[in-house]
Amino acid sequence: MPDHADGYPTALGASTPETITLLGADLAGDIMGKVGFGELAFWLAAQRRPTTGETRVFEAVLAALADHGFTPTAIVTRLTYLSAPDSVQGALAAGLLGGGSRFLGVTEDSARFLHRHLPDPLPADDTAWDTLARDVLRAQGGARIPGLGHHLHKDGDPRTPRLMRIAAEEGLFGPHLSLFAAIGRVHPRLLGKTLPLNGAGACGAALADLGLPLELLRGFALLARTAGLIGQLAEELHRPVANEIFLSVDLNHRPVPPGGPGGSYG
Amino acid sequence: MPDHADGYPTALGASTPETITLLGADLAGDIMGKVGFGELAFWLAAQRRPTTGETRVFEAVLAALADHGFTPTAIVTRLTYLSAPDSVQGALAAGLLGGGSRFLGVTEDSARFLHRHLPDPLPADDTAWDTLARDVLRAQGGARIPGLGHHLHKDGDPRTPRLMRIAAEEGLFGPHLSLFAAIGRVHPRLLGKTLPLNGAGACGAALADLGLPLELLRGFALLARTAGLIGQLAEELHRPVANEIFLSVDLNHRPVPPGGPGGSYG
Amino acid sequence: MPDHADGYPTALGASTPETITLLGADLAGDIMGKVGFGELAFWLAAQRRPTTGETRVFEAVLAALADHGFTPTAIVTRLTYLSAPDSVQGALAAGLLGGGSRFLGVTEDSARFLHRHLPDPLPADDTAWDTLARDVLRAQGGARIPGLGHHLHKDGDPRTPRLMRIAAEEGLFGPHLSLFAAIGRVHPRLLGKTLPLNGAGACGAALADLGLPLELLRGFALLARTAGLIGQLAEELHRPVANEIFLSVDLNHRPVPPGGPGGSYG
Amino acid sequence: MPDHADGYPTALGASTPETITLLGADLAGDIMGKVGFGELAFWLAAQRRPTTGETRVFEAVLAALADHGFTPTAIVTRLTYLSAPDSVQGALAAGLLGGGSRFLGVTEDSARFLHRHLPDPLPADDTAWDTLARDVLRAQGGARIPGLGHHLHKDGDPRTPRLMRIAAEEGLFGPHLSLFAAIGRVHPRLLGKTLPLNGAGACGAALADLGLPLELLRGFALLARTAGLIGQLAEELHRPVANEIFLSVDLNHRPVPPGGPGGSYG
Repeated sequence: MPDHADGYPTALGASTPETITLLGADLAGDIMGKVGFGELAFWLAAQRRPTTGETRVFEAVLAALADHGFTPTAIVTRLTYLSAPDSVQGALAAGLLGGGSRFLGVTEDSARFLHRHLPDPLPADDTAWDTLARDVLRAQGGARIPGLGHHLHKDGDPRTPRLMRIAAEEGLFGPHLSLFAAIGRVHPRLLGKTLPLNGAGACGAALADLGLPLELLRGFALLARTAGLIGQLAEELHRPVANEIFLSVDLNHRPVPPGGPGGSYG
Repeated sequence: MPDHADGYPTALGASTPETITLLGADLAGDIMGKVGFGELAFWLAAQRRPTTGETRVFEAVLAALADHGFTPTAIVTRLTYLSAPDSVQGALAAGLLGGGSRFLGVTEDSARFLHRHLPDPLPADDTAWDTLARDVLRAQGGARIPGLGHHLHKDGDPRTPRLMRIAAEEGLFGPHLSLFAAIGRVHPRLLGKTLPLNGAGACGAALADLGLPLELLRGFALLARTAGLIGQLAEELHRPVANEIFLSVDLNHRPVPPGGPGGSYG
Repeated sequence: MPDHADGYPTALGASTPETITLLGADLAGDIMGKVGFGELAFWLAAQRRPTTGETRVFEAVLAALADHGFTPTAIVTRLTYLSAPDSVQGALAAGLLGGGSRFLGVTEDSARFLHRHLPDPLPADDTAWDTLARDVLRAQGGARIPGLGHHLHKDGDPRTPRLMRIAAEEGLFGPHLSLFAAIGRVHPRLLGKTLPLNGAGACGAALADLGLPLELLRGFALLARTAGLIGQLAEELHRPVANEIFLSVDLNHRPVPPGGPGGSYG
Repeated sequence: MPDHADGYPTALGASTPETITLLGADLAGDIMGKVGFGELAFWLAAQRRPTTGETRVFEAVLAALADHGFTPTAIVTRLTYLSAPDSVQGALAAGLLGGGSRFLGVTEDSARFLHRHLPDPLPADDTAWDTLARDVLRAQGGARIPGLGHHLHKDGDPRTPRLMRIAAEEGLFGPHLSLFAAIGRVHPRLLGKTLPLNGAGACGAALADLGLPLELLRGFALLARTAGLIGQLAEELHRPVANEIFLSVDLNHRPVPPGGPGGSYG
């Protein structure tokens, strides 16, 4: 069965009694104290060390996604900690499990959408990008465009122009961000209304332009969110709200008679 | 019921249609592109911005804990992704759930142990630290000292001296690391054998010296590990081993008759 | 915002100082000691009490799905318990997280597939079901038919005929099972080979015939698996294998140079 | 390394192309349609088939623990499903992660507490049990007695007498329930106040009397709760409340300036 009769291959952590290596580098001598955490996370995911500019864009994305206040994931982490304070890992894991299609998923969905529509060769200038963006929007018919629209920031998500500028400053404004920006320029005319390019979508485009695996873009949103959820737990420790949230629901329950869709086909 | 008739307090993320703030700062203008991810994670947890030196020590700890190769948590994340590739969040959460008492717990346990034994006022010099360390070890009787010993790095964990040097360089070699170092110096005489100060213990001591909440030290190990687990998933994508691991177990199962401890007391 | 100014409605558990009700019934007097666990689980999901026959079919499905030996989910639960023995909830949760598209998902996918192809009115006899089944298979082109095929039980999954007989005995052989059985009859001629109707698919069809919500069919597979995973943990306690599984991977790691798909588009 | 050069032993699920066995029995022929789900869950955990009486007590315990309305775990499952509707397994796992020391833990804690105080030989009659109970309570000093007291059912938890009667009817009122009942009789005099024996504690005592492994008692509470959480999801599907719960928190957030315990020791 195993093809790997010679062992399970990995370029990640490995140890001997005297040494610890990570990604082929000496952990103690070459990484600790020399490599920032964002840089290391990129390196681990891409198996190549990012440039300073790539690290800056990557960390800007992580900052944009780290915490959005009392999201479902934040509430879940606080409630789980209330219920099982013996297990910090359980509280964090529970919060991350909300990182699915509706909330954190936009980042990944946007990147995949943009990626799917990139032609080869790529458009040569903004005019050509705009033409492509119009084709993409028309092909969508009325379907939702991932990354377009925001329930709150209706006149513009402040993260989007900021991230685009950072990417441009670092020479990392690639095809995904180019198509995303073009969609932002051309959609008002086609859709008859102006929607904001949201920050989650911009983050997805930027991560894709960094060449990170599309299958794992949701993972970076989750990494960012892990830091945010630790912040939520730290705040819960000295400014607790979870018990009141729980009581606000439990004390306001209203008993209704059973009944539902559970009929039989038999 | 709610004391917070005026609302649930938070200093973390908050949004208006035009702005997004995080920790009281403007997310787009003051954080994105300016604050590294390790620095931000510290800031979120402590609700104060760390110094450059604190960030360096903190990121060195995260690097030390990010990935240790094919640990149970890494294997769990890969197997879960094999089984449910539609849910990256589930694969990461499953891996983090292994971050309990036996593996990641050492970081937190060491910090708590050291913290519990710090006197007020603190020892004034190395001689006084050594005296304290001897008292602590004697009080333990034969019980295990968290942070002392390693199944592989028997002659020394390379992360420990490196982390101590980084903390010293940044003026952040505080009382937890001081007691930990003293235990390292005095235990051979008392225990009759020389054990290494392990890296997880050194990380716990360093995090405690940074003033981070003891209740959440396991959380930082989990944050570091999240980056490592994303690395494991990225590697699984182009160098898969999970299916072979699964088959190596399943194809080697050996049926035995049922039987166990499940007797009745009735 | 809340429409529910009058409270959050629920027909599930509710308590007063003197009473506990569940689904409108008195928990202590009417449920405990009188309602089996499978029956209760059905009642909770459908908000109506099942008949004896429905309970028998439902419990047969749960039995079919409870444990399949050293699956990835079972290995994950054992490894997580090894790593974090302080958190049984974490070990079970980690195992359940493998219940996604590849393994447990077949149950739900089959039910949805069959449901999508049921006409109104339903076929009147087996000949008409066979005609429908042929149309369904043709419409699939070469695409995979959920529930058809098994990597091991190539000549027939013993669970399938057994579950069909139980459903028939209880008068609960409904349209989903009928279409599934018809697919079993007609596919060899159309596909040019005979594949088994697998047990997971039969379970999905049977659950759908019971009128349980399609959105939650995976949930029942997970309920069954929770019992199986507790069995795995119980066995791990007195016949441990997790540490050896871990070592069999870790000691067989093979360091390779870093490298991957992480190029930049910038 | 492996002692199990001859394979990983298991008495649980095993398959050949023609057969599927579980616990040494033929799954299709001997279990499906013949063994209820509660009975099977007991069998899986104890590796012996329970008697009818044991099954009845066991299922009464599961019923008592299945759902308590809008608990933190129920809210967590609903919020996670709101946020990630693509992953039922994630929503259930997140809910189970709240099954820790504060809520579900009482079941296990009570059983362990009672078990630890059982003498050998056991008391012969109620008078002797009362004497033991008084010794146990005195030895606790003022410390909390697991299973004693309830925040709502101050004059008696209706599940407790019911479960005791069922156990007695089945001849399964063993030493754990005996000591628990004795604590109920003698504590008012010693503590100067009358507290209820809570249902979770009674469940723990009953499970221990069934001879189930103490290390896994929390697991049975989680199995029961899995059924309850599926009920919560089913209700959320046609009577949703999660979005309003989320908004009731998010819209009532109150920004406060950062600040916390994150000082440095450096």
